Amino acid sequence: MKQIKIGLLGMGNIGTGTYKTLEMNRERITANAGVELVISKILEKDLARKRDVTVTPEQFTQEPADILESPDTDIVIELLGGTEPATDFMLTAMHNGKHVVTANKAAVAANYDKLMGAARANRVMFRFEASVGGGIPILNALTAPLLANEYEEIRGILNGTTNYILTQMAEGGLSYGDALQSAQAQGFAEADPTADVEGHDVANKLSILISLAFGKRVPPEAIPTVGITGLTMRDIEKAAADGGKLKLIALAKRTGGGLEYSVGPTFVPNGHPLAGVRNEFNAIFVKGNAVGELMFYGRGAGPLPTGSAVMGDVIEIARALAR
Amino acid sequence: MKQIKIGLLGMGNIGTGTYKTLEMNRERITANAGVELVISKILEKDLARKRDVTVTPEQFTQEPADILESPDTDIVIELLGGTEPATDFMLTAMHNGKHVVTANKAAVAANYDKLMGAARANRVMFRFEASVGGGIPILNALTAPLLANEYEEIRGILNGTTNYILTQMAEGGLSYGDALQSAQAQGFAEADPTADVEGHDVANKLSILISLAFGKRVPPEAIPTVGITGLTMRDIEKAAADGGKLKLIALAKRTGGGLEYSVGPTFVPNGHPLAGVRNEFNAIFVKGNAVGELMFYGRGAGPLPTGSAVMGDVIEIARALAR
Repeated sequence: MKQIKIGLLGMGNIGTGTYKTLEMNRERITANAGVELVISKILEKDLARKRDVTVTPEQFTQEPADILESPDTDIVIELLGGTEPATDFMLTAMHNGKHVVTANKAAVAANYDKLMGAARANRVMFRFEASVGGGIPILNALTAPLLANEYEEIRGILNGTTNYILTQMAEGGLSYGDALQSAQAQGFAEADPTADVEGHDVANKLSILISLAFGKRVPPEAIPTVGITGLTMRDIEKAAADGGKLKLIALAKRTGGGLEYSVGPTFVPNGHPLAGVRNEFNAIFVKGNAVGELMFYGRGAGPLPTGSAVMGDVIEIARALAR
Repeated sequence: MKQIKIGLLGMGNIGTGTYKTLEMNRERITANAGVELVISKILEKDLARKRDVTVTPEQFTQEPADILESPDTDIVIELLGGTEPATDFMLTAMHNGKHVVTANKAAVAANYDKLMGAARANRVMFRFEASVGGGIPILNALTAPLLANEYEEIRGILNGTTNYILTQMAEGGLSYGDALQSAQAQGFAEADPTADVEGHDVANKLSILISLAFGKRVPPEAIPTVGITGLTMRDIEKAAADGGKLKLIALAKRTGGGLEYSVGPTFVPNGHPLAGVRNEFNAIFVKGNAVGELMFYGRGAGPLPTGSAVMGDVIEIARALAR
C-alpha cells in the first residue's frame, strides 16, 4: 500500500490530539484514505512532556527545514498557532509542493488571500476545517454539499470559552470572574483569556466563514467586535426575565445593501435552537436560499474533536492523492 | 465551457424543487461545478401540472430509454419514489455508464448492495444525500469530513410528519387525529400517511445510515419499528410532567455485543438538544470516538431543501467529471 508521509508542526494539545486520533483509529483511517498515513517528523521543542501516545525520539526535530524542505514530506499539518511563523512555514511548505492542513484560525483569517493564492499557484491542496467550530464539519458543508445554495445568513456560537462562562452565569448564578475561573480550571479557557473573552477569536472564525460562504474578504479587524467582559449578572437576569439568553453571536447576513456582519452579545429567545447550546459547545446556523435553515452543533474545541477535523482534512487529501 | 447533460426521472414536488434550485442559482452552481449543467430530458406523464419553472414541452418524454439509453445523458436524477421501477431504472442507467443521484430512501434501503455493487462494477458515481434528512448534509458528513472517527452512535428525528404531529400534540394540545389533519393541510403529510406514522419511512433512513456509518447491512424490515399511532394525549402529558418530550427516535448504537438498533417513540429530556427540534424539522445526532457529540439540524423534507441536496450531489459528480 502506498505511504503518505506527514510532517507535524507543533505537538501541544491539538498536535497530541491529532496524533492520538490517527493512532486510535489507524485501521479505519487507512481503509478510508486508501493509503497508509505516517507521521514521519514532528517539529516540537518540548520533548519531556507526558503524551498519551506512542512517539519515538527520532520523530522529533528542532529544524523546520527537516519537514518543510524534505522530499519525504507529502502533507504538512500546521498546529503551532499564532500568525507567525505559522504562515511563513505554510507558504514555504506549499512552495515546496506540499499539501497543507491547519487548525490555525488566526493565521488563516489574517493571511487568507496569500495562503489560498499560494495553494493555487503551487497546485497543492490547502484545508483548514479545524479552524472554525472544532470538530463540527462546517467548512466542508459550506464548500461541498450545500454548493447549490446562495447563502443568506450565517449566525453562530463560535467560542466555547465564552459560551461556557455565559452558561455558568445564567444557570449557576456565578459571577463573571467565578465563571472564568471555573472555565480555566476545566481547561476551557487559557491563562490569558483575552482573545476569547474580547471576541477576537470569534472574529477570526467569522472572517473565514465570510470568505468561504460569501466570497468576500473581510479581515477580522474590520469586523465590529464586542466581547463579554462588559456583561453583568443584571444583564443575564434581564435576558432570562425576557424569555431568552445572552449569547456571544457571530453574524454575517446578506442584505439589499450588501453584507452585514458583527460579533457581540445578543439576546436569543428560548425558542431558538441557539439558546439551547450550553457550556463549551458551539453551534453554527446557516441559511441558504434553497435549503432554508440548518444548524450544526458540536464541540468547538478540545484535542480529539480538533484532531478529528484535522485528520478528516488529511484523509480528503490522501484520497485525492490515491486517485 | 463543458456541458453535462442530466436526465430527470419524475417531475413531481421534488423534481420541480430540484429543477427550480438549478434555475434560481444557475450562475453560482455553474461556477461551483466548473461545467454547465443542462436538464435535457424529463420522464414525466403529467404535462398539464402548473410548475413555477421554465420548462419546454420538448424536454418531456414518456419513454425511459430516451434518458437511460441515450448517449446524451451524463447524469440520471431519479425522483420517482418507490422501489420499482426506480431501482430497475437506476441499475440500467449505471449499466449504461451514467452517474446516478437519487432522493429515494425506499429504493436505496431495499436495494443498497445491488445499487452500490452496480456503481462499482460500472465505475460510475452513485449519490443519495437527499434520501436521509432532506437538505441536511448528513451522508456527506458521515462519508467525508468525519472519516477519522469510529462511529459509536447515531440517533435522530428523521421524519418531519411525525415530529410535526408530536409537536402539535405537546404544544397545541391537539389530539392525534387533529394534528394529523393539520399536517395534511400544511402539506407535511400524505393523504395516506401510513409509511410516516407507522415508522417505515424512518426505518428506511436508519437502514441507510447504518450501512454508511457502521458498514453493516440491516434491511429496514429487520429494524424493530414502532410508529406514533399508539400514542395518546395522556402519554404526551406524562412526558411533559416528567420534564421531557416524546419523539419518534431512530437509534443505532455500537455496544459490546454488536450493533443495537430501533425506531420508536422515546422520552427525550428537555435538556437534550433533540427535545428542542420542533414541527417539521429533523435532527441527527452523531457520536464519534474522536469528535464526540455532533448534531445536524434542518428541514428534513420539502421541494427546495431536497432540491438543495440533490443538486449538491450533482455538483460533486460534475466537479469530479471536470477534473
